[in-house]
Amino acid sequence: MKRTVYLDNATTTALDPEVLKAMEPYFFEWYSSPTHEYGHSLGLKAREALEESREKIARSIGAEPGEVIFTSGGTESNNLALKGLALTSKGKNHIITSKIEHASILNVVRSLERRNGYKASYLNVDEEGFVDIEQLKGEIGKDTLLVSIQHANQEIGTIQNIREIGEICRDHGVLFHVDAVQSFTKAPIDVEKMNIDLLSISAHKIHGPKGIGALYVREGVKLRPLIEGGYNEFGLRSGTENIPGAVGFAKAIEIVDESHLEHMRRLRDYLMKGLLEIPDSRLNGPKGERRLCNNVNVTFRFVEGESILLHLDIRGIIVTTGSACFSRTLEPSHVILALGLSHEDAHGSVRFSLSKYNTREEMDYTIESVRDVVEQLRQISPVGR
Amino acid sequence: MKRTVYLDNATTTALDPEVLKAMEPYFFEWYSSPTHEYGHSLGLKAREALEESREKIARSIGAEPGEVIFTSGGTESNNLALKGLALTSKGKNHIITSKIEHASILNVVRSLERRNGYKASYLNVDEEGFVDIEQLKGEIGKDTLLVSIQHANQEIGTIQNIREIGEICRDHGVLFHVDAVQSFTKAPIDVEKMNIDLLSISAHKIHGPKGIGALYVREGVKLRPLIEGGYNEFGLRSGTENIPGAVGFAKAIEIVDESHLEHMRRLRDYLMKGLLEIPDSRLNGPKGERRLCNNVNVTFRFVEGESILLHLDIRGIIVTTGSACFSRTLEPSHVILALGLSHEDAHGSVRFSLSKYNTREEMDYTIESVRDVVEQLRQISPVGR
Repeated sequence: MKRTVYLDNATTTALDPEVLKAMEPYFFEWYSSPTHEYGHSLGLKAREALEESREKIARSIGAEPGEVIFTSGGTESNNLALKGLALTSKGKNHIITSKIEHASILNVVRSLERRNGYKASYLNVDEEGFVDIEQLKGEIGKDTLLVSIQHANQEIGTIQNIREIGEICRDHGVLFHVDAVQSFTKAPIDVEKMNIDLLSISAHKIHGPKGIGALYVREGVKLRPLIEGGYNEFGLRSGTENIPGAVGFAKAIEIVDESHLEHMRRLRDYLMKGLLEIPDSRLNGPKGERRLCNNVNVTFRFVEGESILLHLDIRGIIVTTGSACFSRTLEPSHVILALGLSHEDAHGSVRFSLSKYNTREEMDYTIESVRDVVEQLRQISPVGR
Repeated sequence: MKRTVYLDNATTTALDPEVLKAMEPYFFEWYSSPTHEYGHSLGLKAREALEESREKIARSIGAEPGEVIFTSGGTESNNLALKGLALTSKGKNHIITSKIEHASILNVVRSLERRNGYKASYLNVDEEGFVDIEQLKGEIGKDTLLVSIQHANQEIGTIQNIREIGEICRDHGVLFHVDAVQSFTKAPIDVEKMNIDLLSISAHKIHGPKGIGALYVREGVKLRPLIEGGYNEFGLRSGTENIPGAVGFAKAIEIVDESHLEHMRRLRDYLMKGLLEIPDSRLNGPKGERRLCNNVNVTFRFVEGESILLHLDIRGIIVTTGSACFSRTLEPSHVILALGLSHEDAHGSVRFSLSKYNTREEMDYTIESVRDVVEQLRQISPVGR
């Protein structure tokens, strides 16, 4: 039997069977839409399930239930946070973000620049991917509406110092949005302690269902809804509530265990060590506690990441190059380029994403396979060493 | 054992076990995101599943696969159609819709009026809920960008003459959007024959999963995306693709059978006949072929719909008043008011939504229970007869 080692980003998107079990009653029995307090019993049960899920999600980030809005996922949450705020703001028209954000931040900021008269600053990062804090302080001005910085990077796993950035935002009276889609439940987040005003999270990155995410909106922060209709989700996001999705999301949070994180951290360090023993390899992103527990990203010089991917695929190992979104194109990763690497080296970067399901044996097989593949490819490579 | 008769709108939203079965491999095995053609095998499999689902959905409405965009549901589809078109249009600033549309149309049109300088015409309907065609012809002017008319009504089941409206739109060179969320697979739709440019549909109304819908966009019609990011869905709707959702949506279409529709039609007519034998009752919406196969809506004069709902709930019968969205408030239904009924009579309307799972015995029990409940409530009603 061909073995398969899942190390692509989607590894973390497999549904946990316990999550499906929690969702099932809401597929077949309690499938109603939530009703008001004078509604029928099925609707009341649905409302109860929705609000219990909301409460569990709120608790996991230090928020109040009334501050959590269900969306269809991380991309929608990011869009709602940025556009929802920008389109209702009067006067302030400057947004600060970083060069290594996810496409759903960068393209929304660009859209606000192009269409809505916004100005934007894209902060530099250092060679490990950390945002330039001094630059941030310098860019904040009286027109600055919002700072949007991700918690952890989607490609190189850099965990930003959100608390420090939050303090700067608070001191300058500027709103702070955090895209925590990659880090949620993998690195601690607390919207109070970190002075976060808006926070995006998604279920499928933590073995929950696809098609559901959430946006934390601090009480008092005003947004314009993108999707209007029946005034669901406190008037901020209309549409039939996805109750099975919400229940599955909450369940996925509930079953996250510190031992899973420790397991991933150990595999990460083991894999990293093995891969970096391959000659002319380079770790992208930081080591240790400031790196996401499930991310390894290595550039193998003189070879194409795409070629490594295909050769590993033949051996049953699934990895990605660049971010999942950009891996649909063959453009070099904007994240790797922002670290200061050349186009050529950016093309040689491979991302390995771990999940609680991976094993030590899989890491050994992966290290051995990558070593073979890289060696073979270098022998036939037209690019000189 | 207490029996439960599901006749609320959510009846039609129970997942079909066959749909879940089709989705399961994409939860646990093929859970990757779609990749480009040089991607890994898991991503190719995901892309295949997504495109096969898109093709099945396109085929069911007479469209090409490249004209179908996945969304998170009917409300998002309606928002994307109207705002996406309005925000990219230059010059034309007039929209025509009807007074009995779903909240996700009416509130979006109002939003475009309030915030984007649009003018709107809300067409009257006759006592059965049919749009005033002469008024439509009179309202279309050189500034008219779009006509948005639902296929079937969410409360009273009126099926509009979409073909006739489509012809008028074509003759006047005006774009035509159809909200077909209620009618999809229950009444025939063909975007070519009916000259439809944009069409909204949703999975959960046909025993598919919640959290997934689609928007048909005729080739050549330009929209501005509401949710931006990684350029998914032909650049019109970003976000990690909900592959299990798409597969479930396509499966739900596949298992619709003419015999289910015939079954619902028979139950509908039987229930309608029984309920209308209750004194001082009035059918809302038309009879026969111009009514949705699964909708019955009756006003019982001199009683509150909410009271009927609660008393039926005690007997295990789940019904709704007004539309599901508005039933969260205690406001009278805008649809029933548009038919010309008084506020008092609008409050006495009850909607019974049938599904393929209902039985003739349930109809007998429902008729008998409604008769008892209405009689009892009238005895204690303070409103004179």
